[in-house]
Amino acid sequence: MTIPNILGPKSGITRDPFPGSRKIYVKGNLHKINVAMREIDLEGDRLTVYDTSGPYTDPERTVDIHQGIDRLRSPWIRERNNNENNTQLALARKGIISPEMEYVAIRENQQLQLMRERFRSLARFHKGNSFGIPMPEGEITPEFVRQEIAGGRAMIPANKNHPESEPMIIGPKFLVKINANIGNSAVTSCLEEEVEKAVWACRWGADTIMDLSTGKRIHDTREAILRNSPVPVGTVPLYQALEKVKGKAEDLSWQVVKETILEQAEQGVDYMTVHAGLLIDHVPLTDNRLTGIVSRGGSVLAKWCKAHQEENFLYTHFEDLCDIAAQYDIGLSLGDGLRPGCQADANDQAQFAELAVLGELTQKAWSKDIQVIIEGPGHVPLHLIQENVALQRKHCFDAPFYTLGPITTDITPGYDHISSAIGAANIGWYGASMLCYVTPKEHLGLPSKKDVKDGVIAYKLAAHVADLAKGHPVAQLRDNLLSKARFEFRWKDQFNLSLDPETASEYYHENLPDRSDDKEKPYCSMCGPDFCSMKATSEMRSQKIKDSEEEAPC
Amino acid sequence: MTIPNILGPKSGITRDPFPGSRKIYVKGNLHKINVAMREIDLEGDRLTVYDTSGPYTDPERTVDIHQGIDRLRSPWIRERNNNENNTQLALARKGIISPEMEYVAIRENQQLQLMRERFRSLARFHKGNSFGIPMPEGEITPEFVRQEIAGGRAMIPANKNHPESEPMIIGPKFLVKINANIGNSAVTSCLEEEVEKAVWACRWGADTIMDLSTGKRIHDTREAILRNSPVPVGTVPLYQALEKVKGKAEDLSWQVVKETILEQAEQGVDYMTVHAGLLIDHVPLTDNRLTGIVSRGGSVLAKWCKAHQEENFLYTHFEDLCDIAAQYDIGLSLGDGLRPGCQADANDQAQFAELAVLGELTQKAWSKDIQVIIEGPGHVPLHLIQENVALQRKHCFDAPFYTLGPITTDITPGYDHISSAIGAANIGWYGASMLCYVTPKEHLGLPSKKDVKDGVIAYKLAAHVADLAKGHPVAQLRDNLLSKARFEFRWKDQFNLSLDPETASEYYHENLPDRSDDKEKPYCSMCGPDFCSMKATSEMRSQKIKDSEEEAPC
Repeated sequence: MTIPNILGPKSGITRDPFPGSRKIYVKGNLHKINVAMREIDLEGDRLTVYDTSGPYTDPERTVDIHQGIDRLRSPWIRERNNNENNTQLALARKGIISPEMEYVAIRENQQLQLMRERFRSLARFHKGNSFGIPMPEGEITPEFVRQEIAGGRAMIPANKNHPESEPMIIGPKFLVKINANIGNSAVTSCLEEEVEKAVWACRWGADTIMDLSTGKRIHDTREAILRNSPVPVGTVPLYQALEKVKGKAEDLSWQVVKETILEQAEQGVDYMTVHAGLLIDHVPLTDNRLTGIVSRGGSVLAKWCKAHQEENFLYTHFEDLCDIAAQYDIGLSLGDGLRPGCQADANDQAQFAELAVLGELTQKAWSKDIQVIIEGPGHVPLHLIQENVALQRKHCFDAPFYTLGPITTDITPGYDHISSAIGAANIGWYGASMLCYVTPKEHLGLPSKKDVKDGVIAYKLAAHVADLAKGHPVAQLRDNLLSKARFEFRWKDQFNLSLDPETASEYYHENLPDRSDDKEKPYCSMCGPDFCSMKATSEMRSQKIKDSEEEAPC
Repeated sequence: MTIPNILGPKSGITRDPFPGSRKIYVKGNLHKINVAMREIDLEGDRLTVYDTSGPYTDPERTVDIHQGIDRLRSPWIRERNNNENNTQLALARKGIISPEMEYVAIRENQQLQLMRERFRSLARFHKGNSFGIPMPEGEITPEFVRQEIAGGRAMIPANKNHPESEPMIIGPKFLVKINANIGNSAVTSCLEEEVEKAVWACRWGADTIMDLSTGKRIHDTREAILRNSPVPVGTVPLYQALEKVKGKAEDLSWQVVKETILEQAEQGVDYMTVHAGLLIDHVPLTDNRLTGIVSRGGSVLAKWCKAHQEENFLYTHFEDLCDIAAQYDIGLSLGDGLRPGCQADANDQAQFAELAVLGELTQKAWSKDIQVIIEGPGHVPLHLIQENVALQRKHCFDAPFYTLGPITTDITPGYDHISSAIGAANIGWYGASMLCYVTPKEHLGLPSKKDVKDGVIAYKLAAHVADLAKGHPVAQLRDNLLSKARFEFRWKDQFNLSLDPETASEYYHENLPDRSDDKEKPYCSMCGPDFCSMKATSEMRSQKIKDSEEEAPC
């Protein structure tokens, strides 16, 4: 695994730690593992939070993107390499807690007990509700993770050839995760930029990235991304396969796709989207749709089926596909090739017919010890979102749900990160486990670095809103700490606890440029000194204390 | 009513019509009225949409901000000036359909029948659900508007001294409306900027604006805004009253507030927020809150109550207040002085105790023919939002609900327009009638012109998402038309149908700078020419037609 000499000497990768934050490593009990987390300094205390940014934000680690980052999972993988059947699902079913399982258990906890102890006075949490999927009340144990994996209710995407990845888990009883799509197209973007975008997406909170490159040097781009990615990497192998047949869908075959899957598996792709549930009989169900088939993979396969008048080869070769996946421990993301592309087409017969087939494939994959997640829409009005989750659970036996938004109105090009964050927060609350981001450029163009950040932040926000609503036991602590800092005019703590400290600080200082006394100023430029309600409340409260002190003699 | 000579000669007001759009005026049947709407040109057709931008986007009308805009309601107001009891509520109860009622009926319709006729092939709509408040299926009639007003279920804010305002209606059976807060603070902003922001907010879709100025020249700022505002203007009179007593809450009195209300009423303020439901007994209920009282009005009144050990003078003088409101036909927005300021404080006893008092005040106001809306939170996690709407309906007899967001997580300073758009879309779906915007600067500083636009767009988006979900009979047509344009690669139509055509077009052209052939290019830079699913679907569909033509002989 060496990276082709393709990356320029200049790199725009940001390596600064977040302001007021440091990287910490929490040791495992069962395995020799060090779980990376972020500790935020507060006035007189500190909070541990989940951290996806990898070694880049640790000033004590050197990173050379031409070499790739440290391969933390190499010894774990080597150790079990001689066993047959060593996918995470196989191990879990055999009762084995892998280092990856312990890693994610510790990671999900975010030092729950310690944090609860430390901030006992702030433990005023609302009990959420999560539509029949109750959150664990206490600490997440490695054994709990093992059980969720064994039951197919969670996935740890971890190709044995991607040892650089810090293990993470996707499942409804864990923190809601987000994915960021990157990758070039034939029209724009270059390799360096895509690596930079990948690291940038992780910095702001992407839990996985998908490399959806369709342009030039797809193999090299993916290699550079994989070797430098601290999070699992997903792909849609069909895209590269289509490049191999020069964009002619009709010329695709299982053979070409199989070779592509093997090529990508060997590189270390952790999970792959396969549109194996789209059957030839489903295609006519889309005839009266307003926007037809909007999944790239779906439209290509539908075209192939029509041209050959044959069943989708990913469906007919699904077992072969599973055999490859098992060899590398690749997770399968069962694609929704017939997801709706507009409000009018939401929740239609085509969409749900394919979903039923995804359930059938889920069981096939499970029978070969392959982990599965199910992809979901797309474009859905707010009142039709819940039905998607209910049917997905019913058809797919509680396999995790991985949705694209959904976008809740079609009239917002340029702002689809917002209209889809609304759908994403809701579907996460209802039980979806991972949310694929949408950037402001959706439907308009390839996202820039700024768009990637805007998309990631909007989705980190939506995932957190869902975690609060579904009752994650530790999620609200950060909100409470930030609110307390706000009430006490600890501006620096307020900024540092927020999802984007730099932007918060910049906005605050726009009208109050003096940066010397962040801590002291008991107001902002919105209300000014005389109209700050929090200042007024504080004054009233101290008045009250004075009153009671005066009354004390009685 | 002349504007003090305070506005500089230069004005940054944008007067361009939206691209591909023109202003149309639809005539009334009962009254001599011309209802302003926007017509969007499409290839071979055109769509009518709701328009809040006023005369500024009509190139055929001259606007001089030193004179103020046309006073379209002057003759209507003059005509009924001799009658006693001539508020909209009094008229409605007497069975009279005012010109304002006919205006909003026509405006809400957006030429529903004509549009349905014109786009019959696109009439594939999802039936929404709106939690016990069914939307009217067909055209909104003036008589329907009258009934909703008479029943207190809707408000037309229309001070007889603000004849410049184009009538609009706030109620759960109508389009969800949005409000934009503007106004200076002691720290920043100037008068010209606030007028510019007001017109700017209306351009992007604000249905009302609230002038929350607390800095210098409050009276003059308001005068300039009122004379140039095509939408109703709201205020919180307490802010100016507090300025009059030099920021000392203890020095406030009913007399000072009354004089301020009269001053603002005379200028033409259409609706006023009064925190009359916060009682002295409620204050201790906030003692254990994480962020105390976060409403500016609420904190000031609580301080006053504590200092004087007396009941809130707005509560004790509520009938006097109603008498002033009746004289000018001012709508009362019953403020939630105890709304929660963070997730931890949501849905607590303090909040709901005040809400019950707002119900009592609603009936008092109605008994004096005053229209009422009820203000709501604030900061609420997603799973606790619905309870707010349910309790508001129960306590306040179906008076319209006007909420601030709610913000659904506290960890997003800099992005609160997004975290609150999530709450706003949900609460609008559940039945809230107007959503007060939150800008990216919330909690950090006074919004700039850019922030105002970002806030308005995020809320216009949220309101539209709610309209789709609650089943507004015409809302989805615009989505369907945009999606069809998208599928057919009519880029210009796609941009012009979107909430922000300029941004959509700019993003599209960022990587495809050639603007000569928007219509022709069957792809964007996201996927490039070979990977466009819509192109593939089209090709497959035309293949199909060819097939059936070939098969025709059989």
